[in-house]
Amino acid sequence: MKKKGTNHIFIATSLDGFIADKNGNIDYLHSIPNPAGDDMGYSKFIARMDAIIMGRTTFETVCSFDIDWPYTIPVFVLSNTLDKIPANYRGNAYLARGPLTEVLAGIHEQGFHQLYIDGGKTIQGFLQEDLIDEMIITTIPTLLGGGFPLFGELTNTLQYKCKESNVLLDAAVQSRFVRVN
Amino acid sequence: MKKKGTNHIFIATSLDGFIADKNGNIDYLHSIPNPAGDDMGYSKFIARMDAIIMGRTTFETVCSFDIDWPYTIPVFVLSNTLDKIPANYRGNAYLARGPLTEVLAGIHEQGFHQLYIDGGKTIQGFLQEDLIDEMIITTIPTLLGGGFPLFGELTNTLQYKCKESNVLLDAAVQSRFVRVN
Repeated sequence: MKKKGTNHIFIATSLDGFIADKNGNIDYLHSIPNPAGDDMGYSKFIARMDAIIMGRTTFETVCSFDIDWPYTIPVFVLSNTLDKIPANYRGNAYLARGPLTEVLAGIHEQGFHQLYIDGGKTIQGFLQEDLIDEMIITTIPTLLGGGFPLFGELTNTLQYKCKESNVLLDAAVQSRFVRVN
Repeated sequence: MKKKGTNHIFIATSLDGFIADKNGNIDYLHSIPNPAGDDMGYSKFIARMDAIIMGRTTFETVCSFDIDWPYTIPVFVLSNTLDKIPANYRGNAYLARGPLTEVLAGIHEQGFHQLYIDGGKTIQGFLQEDLIDEMIITTIPTLLGGGFPLFGELTNTLQYKCKESNVLLDAAVQSRFVRVN
């Protein structure tokens, strides 16, 4: 099967590679002064995405925020336990089930090809199947000393290339990696 | 006690933060074509160091290489098990024992202040005591999926700042972090 789309990560980690600390908190993300509310390239990134795939945990976290629904593109929620998307999120979020390659094929058929993959477990699942084409990683220069790691175990090593890297807010560093064979 | 010197790391890791793979190999370091033998800034870095502190494992690894002794500055080998430095390394390498702060005080007294800290366990030990001032980390863009991590557990979080970051050899990324309080 010809691959029709590309899958992208845009995420922040601590300097030691954790996306959340030992207690599941992400306070470290705010350890850098950001008075002007620099979005670290997020709006530029999301503008070139067609849809989002996230895990149930990430979906429920977003739902728990006391804010309006933050996405303007469709969100596909990977879950084998959720029965249906809660009523107030229908039209914005869609349930996706089954093997990742089938989920992707279904989403591509609907015309969505540039996909933002979000959530720790979901990202690890995509990487285990070598399904990530691009990773934009913002390293917040804090050593947490433990927590939930961005990267997990892999059966095979995967080779990427760093295409660009920039210091942000005089403290963090954002690097863009693309998959090479 | 006034701190007299500064401690520096210059090391490469995989994109997922390992300094050696699951089998203890460092083949991933050579996954990027480097036809001109670019030293990735090592000679510039080592030129501003006064001495090296490394663990016994790293020392024995260096000794096992079929090359001439590669350092022109004194090497202090941290070990509580080594009795003495083997005869053919004396004059180049010196045994260091005891708590890190005492080891450092002794080395400073000898006039060595800018110290290159090397070896996985040694680096983790220094970080646990918040004794690292600068880290130059070269990220080789391979996901290994497991191995020996550069960073270990910490009691307290540590805050750094990224001062510069550059793409090297069109594939790797080198970032320089300094400790901030």
